[in-house]
Amino acid sequence: MSSILLRNIKLLVNTANPQSALRGTALAELQSLENAWLIVEDGRIAGFGSSDQLPAALPASTIDVTGKMLLPAWCDSHTHLVFAASREEEYVDKIKGLSYSDIAAKGGGILNSAKKLNAASEDELFGLAWQRLQEIMQMGTGAVEIKSGYGLTPDSELKMLRVIRKLKEKSPIPVKATFLGAHTYPQEFRENHEGYISQIIQEMLPAIADGKLADYIDVFCEQNFFSPEETERICLAGMQYGLKPKIHANQLSLSGGTETGVKLGAISVDHLETMDDHAINTLAASSTIGTLLPTAAFFLRMPFQPARKLIDSGCAIALATDYNPGSSPSGNMNLVVSMACTGMKMLPEEAINAATINGAFAMELDKDYGSIAVGKKANFILTKPVPSLAYLPYAFGQSQIEKVMISGEWI
Amino acid sequence: MSSILLRNIKLLVNTANPQSALRGTALAELQSLENAWLIVEDGRIAGFGSSDQLPAALPASTIDVTGKMLLPAWCDSHTHLVFAASREEEYVDKIKGLSYSDIAAKGGGILNSAKKLNAASEDELFGLAWQRLQEIMQMGTGAVEIKSGYGLTPDSELKMLRVIRKLKEKSPIPVKATFLGAHTYPQEFRENHEGYISQIIQEMLPAIADGKLADYIDVFCEQNFFSPEETERICLAGMQYGLKPKIHANQLSLSGGTETGVKLGAISVDHLETMDDHAINTLAASSTIGTLLPTAAFFLRMPFQPARKLIDSGCAIALATDYNPGSSPSGNMNLVVSMACTGMKMLPEEAINAATINGAFAMELDKDYGSIAVGKKANFILTKPVPSLAYLPYAFGQSQIEKVMISGEWI
Repeated sequence: MSSILLRNIKLLVNTANPQSALRGTALAELQSLENAWLIVEDGRIAGFGSSDQLPAALPASTIDVTGKMLLPAWCDSHTHLVFAASREEEYVDKIKGLSYSDIAAKGGGILNSAKKLNAASEDELFGLAWQRLQEIMQMGTGAVEIKSGYGLTPDSELKMLRVIRKLKEKSPIPVKATFLGAHTYPQEFRENHEGYISQIIQEMLPAIADGKLADYIDVFCEQNFFSPEETERICLAGMQYGLKPKIHANQLSLSGGTETGVKLGAISVDHLETMDDHAINTLAASSTIGTLLPTAAFFLRMPFQPARKLIDSGCAIALATDYNPGSSPSGNMNLVVSMACTGMKMLPEEAINAATINGAFAMELDKDYGSIAVGKKANFILTKPVPSLAYLPYAFGQSQIEKVMISGEWI
Repeated sequence: MSSILLRNIKLLVNTANPQSALRGTALAELQSLENAWLIVEDGRIAGFGSSDQLPAALPASTIDVTGKMLLPAWCDSHTHLVFAASREEEYVDKIKGLSYSDIAAKGGGILNSAKKLNAASEDELFGLAWQRLQEIMQMGTGAVEIKSGYGLTPDSELKMLRVIRKLKEKSPIPVKATFLGAHTYPQEFRENHEGYISQIIQEMLPAIADGKLADYIDVFCEQNFFSPEETERICLAGMQYGLKPKIHANQLSLSGGTETGVKLGAISVDHLETMDDHAINTLAASSTIGTLLPTAAFFLRMPFQPARKLIDSGCAIALATDYNPGSSPSGNMNLVVSMACTGMKMLPEEAINAATINGAFAMELDKDYGSIAVGKKANFILTKPVPSLAYLPYAFGQSQIEKVMISGEWI
């Protein structure tokens, strides 16, 4: 039985052991236990406490980490990290003043990623995504959700989901798979939305269910994409196969996505750049989590999500990267947490909880991940010596990570 | 004679070999020479070219860097990286809604840094700054300017400048020292501005000149700090000792700092968040460089500097970090370049030139630093394999640096 003792550490602990995603003032509850110890046994947390309560029987392997901080690894509940190629040429086009529709007319946007994904083999896609997975683990991510949605044909969506399944099988961190066939309309269905929705419901979903290829279903509920009614139809069809909804909502407009998600009992509604009181109050009165993606807002030059108002209204909030080649080409959760504090005025404690335990709830991984609690998986970030937890988002330009532990092993 | 050949590299070259800071369309001129070679001899660039022009006599030491990019190391022309302690507690106070004056009333702000700097020994300050210097070198910075201004007494300003001199002596990268006694008014001179200005002019400047402790003089020209008239008086006094002005201008208001700087023939006017047509046109008609600090604007939740308008009006623009514990606790030039593109719509070529050759001009180091040219110092960033130069600012969350060369040595 492998067993490690970490001594003299600053331990970030959520003592509430929450049974549902944190909201309200509870979101800011995160204690820094000074001069603490923690024992890892067989990849899980066997115990922790302050130095005066050190148990009599100690593991042989002891690591002194004076001045350093141990926090739960990030739980990134919204990514699109399976993709074939970067899209920096569109980034430059936007700087030069081209609009979204100019870029779409040049073959850019999601359809650009779909074209490249169609041309790539399953092995190529796996290799690229595997490399990205290693990179985000090095940056402290210990659990991740990955969406399809760059396939947009039955063959390519299934190919993408098989890549995600292979990541799930080989990855040392848990991976959740979300089917996002309804990401946009492919070229050939541009004038025939009903045709594509039928394809999603009649062809893709049965095959996905048959192969057990997804955990969740997602729809881009947005003006000129999928209406609330279409979103509801697609989600209900997915729910019949046991896929719970996680919905792209209220990014570019008051799309009704939040209300639709809440009505369907979605695990989460994600984005939320554009919210009114009705959407906020509906979300606050529900158990659905609002997942905010500040780096995507920043990269698209949009106002940040109204995190302060959402939290103060009682919504449960998670933070995620939206890692994708078009609007957030970064899987760096440390920067997400920092931008949440600087750009959206979240308290450091709120941002860390939103990026760990609430991210775990947004992937239904809360029993094993997202906080330091006895019995949970030993997925940690060990920082360099830092004066306080607030220093992490404050020192926004430099990594404060010394190393990362996944299932009890330093990676 | 040590000699190294780098082969099969993408080389970012400014072929114009500019004699003054780049402006207008010239700022966007930066060529990516594909499949190129470069020879380093005795810490300097001995030659470079495309693969079909490889010289007959080649160095023994050859490094194949296929797919990677070589660009000049960053020239960070505005930092305050000598300081005694971080100030993340003020960051949290601001998130909680405290105003600048609330924080000042609690003893925060520049006076907080001054208090801590006063209590620190020269050795302590040097040790902390040395560590920061190593960190920014690892992030690709190959030349840096450092300001005093957390002393605010003759003894402490001199102590700070001695620390900078020691950094200059020991550092493998060039360091320029700027005297910023006029950063704010110390507590005891809050009601006696004239008294402090006299102290700067009568006591500090002669001692600094005597010890050859500074290259430049700086003043925080801002409402409720130093007026244009006071700025001019202090700069003229410094100029009598050979210190050229580099001025904090137009950060929080139309302070007149830009016009004052141009009138004095300042090397640069820095910040420029708040500009009107008069200030822009005055700057454009001068040889003074406008140094933009996007991470400071971001961290203070201010609108970014109007880079597009400044460039399109013909101003010469540099980019720098403003590394300091209050408003930009980061010395990461890569993030500065990325924020310049995402937040201020600078083209990647413009941002890289502004952060290299124009930064070198803003420190009068252009003869030896800031671009790839025969005879210049071999201070480079070698990237990981990247598809294009635009990928560098686009992939904003991950470091693309593989290693850094300073004076011909990998660090």
